[in-house]
Amino acid sequence: MRKLRLIGIGTGNPEHLTLQAVGALESVEVVFILDKGEAKAELLRLRREICERFITRPFRFVVAQDPERDRNPGDYAAAVEAWHTARAVLYETLILRELAAGACGAILVWGDPALYDSTLRIIDRIVARGHLPLDYDVIPGISSVQALAASHRIALNRIGGPIHITTGRAIADGLKPDAESTVVMLDGDPRFEHLDPDLTIYWGAYLGTANEIILAGRLGAVAGEIRRLRAEARAHHGWIMDTYLLRAPDRR
Amino acid sequence: MRKLRLIGIGTGNPEHLTLQAVGALESVEVVFILDKGEAKAELLRLRREICERFITRPFRFVVAQDPERDRNPGDYAAAVEAWHTARAVLYETLILRELAAGACGAILVWGDPALYDSTLRIIDRIVARGHLPLDYDVIPGISSVQALAASHRIALNRIGGPIHITTGRAIADGLKPDAESTVVMLDGDPRFEHLDPDLTIYWGAYLGTANEIILAGRLGAVAGEIRRLRAEARAHHGWIMDTYLLRAPDRR
Ligand SMILES: C[S@@+](CC[C@H](N)C(=O)[O-])C[C@H]1O[C@@H](n2cnc3c(N)ncnc32)[C@H](O)[C@@H]1O
Ligand SMILES: C[S@@+](CC[C@H](N)C(=O)[O-])C[C@H]1O[C@@H](n2cnc3c(N)ncnc32)[C@H](O)[C@@H]1O
Repeated sequence: MRKLRLIGIGTGNPEHLTLQAVGALESVEVVFILDKGEAKAELLRLRREICERFITRPFRFVVAQDPERDRNPGDYAAAVEAWHTARAVLYETLILRELAAGACGAILVWGDPALYDSTLRIIDRIVARGHLPLDYDVIPGISSVQALAASHRIALNRIGGPIHITTGRAIADGLKPDAESTVVMLDGDPRFEHLDPDLTIYWGAYLGTANEIILAGRLGAVAGEIRRLRAEARAHHGWIMDTYLLRAPDRR
Repeated sequence: MRKLRLIGIGTGNPEHLTLQAVGALESVEVVFILDKGEAKAELLRLRREICERFITRPFRFVVAQDPERDRNPGDYAAAVEAWHTARAVLYETLILRELAAGACGAILVWGDPALYDSTLRIIDRIVARGHLPLDYDVIPGISSVQALAASHRIALNRIGGPIHITTGRAIADGLKPDAESTVVMLDGDPRFEHLDPDLTIYWGAYLGTANEIILAGRLGAVAGEIRRLRAEARAHHGWIMDTYLLRAPDRR
């Protein structure tokens, strides 16, 4: 039996690691890293920094090239499925080859493993394939949504109200009429023109990192400024990750 | 200027504290605790344990009796408002009296401060009242939702799909027809009879604590067992906190 730990590492601030994550890292002999290419070199660097700081015994990195992914598929779900299978086969091969039976490996997951991350599905798939008996656990981490709320010093919900977490893709046609608090992730090109200008937006990029930027205000007033800041930062750093909360005007 | 830190402490497992939370605790001289009465004595004990373990300098607890709250109000939002004002006045008085100018105090927040917690609204209210200049920050913590997902080793979302976080009260009349992944919190008496029995439920109580219980399955098959377990555990411990994810059947 091999042991694998999926460790949520937060979204850029090593201080967001939990004591449980630090404790898990201490026992690790191999850290598996899927390299997502040059644009994310900074994210890779952060993972290495975390490992070097917290892993107390001799350990190895096993870095694999993430399989190619169709970024503009006709069928989004099917394309993600195919990509997950490719990653499952790759991980299975790597674990078999690089992790001795009885040894403990880790995969560091950006933010929280439960939120828009494919690692758990990959592991499920490996387990379902049945070639590789695996004992695994999941260690939660601070997500970008929580980093956003903490930096803005806000609650995600109105009093007793719901929170909807969704993707840029899903709000391309607008919010639902009764949407009260909507968190948007995975929005590669935020367009706000089709949304109610009276929404309040709480926006944040590079949350948790030294380059964190946040901005909040009436959407109609700040949308242009966010797009400008975003384009500028993206050009400067070569990549961007941002998240925002849209809060409906209080019409009680 | 007084400094106040709102520190998310997770939901029962001291190992869920982040390094940032531990670092913040080190600098604290006064910890404010609102005592919610005997039923929650165990939660109070955990807060004390965290402080004693992590605060490295001499510090004091200031324990206040939480103001009474109308548990069955006609107007829910108005009752919560009144209760928040009472708590704001209480905290303001305590901070003025117990925290010297220039000193640093902390409020330990259960789970994540951004999720169904009133502390941030209380602080906003104190700041708005303008009697007490306050420098405050927020330190995110692992929420019960994340503890639930980690223990079940699941993602909260389907691939690219939305997550709806809501309350027991809000689903009393059923889920929205297009609900895919719904997290339910603050459900004092979960009734599942009105929900689609083909939903998958991932349920968890006392998450993060030594008494954690989790159960998952087809709602129609496990609803009775959850209600039984829940009643038994509540009778045994004198209180319960539980959360669950409802996942719609995949009808693609
Ligand atoms: C594939 S998802 C992973 C989310 C991650 N598991 C989490 O818990 O935050 C990537 C999306 O998360 C958000 N995100 C991740 N890191 C971020 C950061 N440091 N600042 C702002 N948004 C971030 C962005 O919306 C990005 O498109
Ligand atoms: C007032 S809310 C506070 C939520 C908290 N801020 C968080 O981040 O989890 C209380 C609700 O959170 C959930 N909850 C909190 N602690 C829990 C635990 N240890 N296990 C299961 N559910 C919990 C329950 O649904 C409970 O009704």
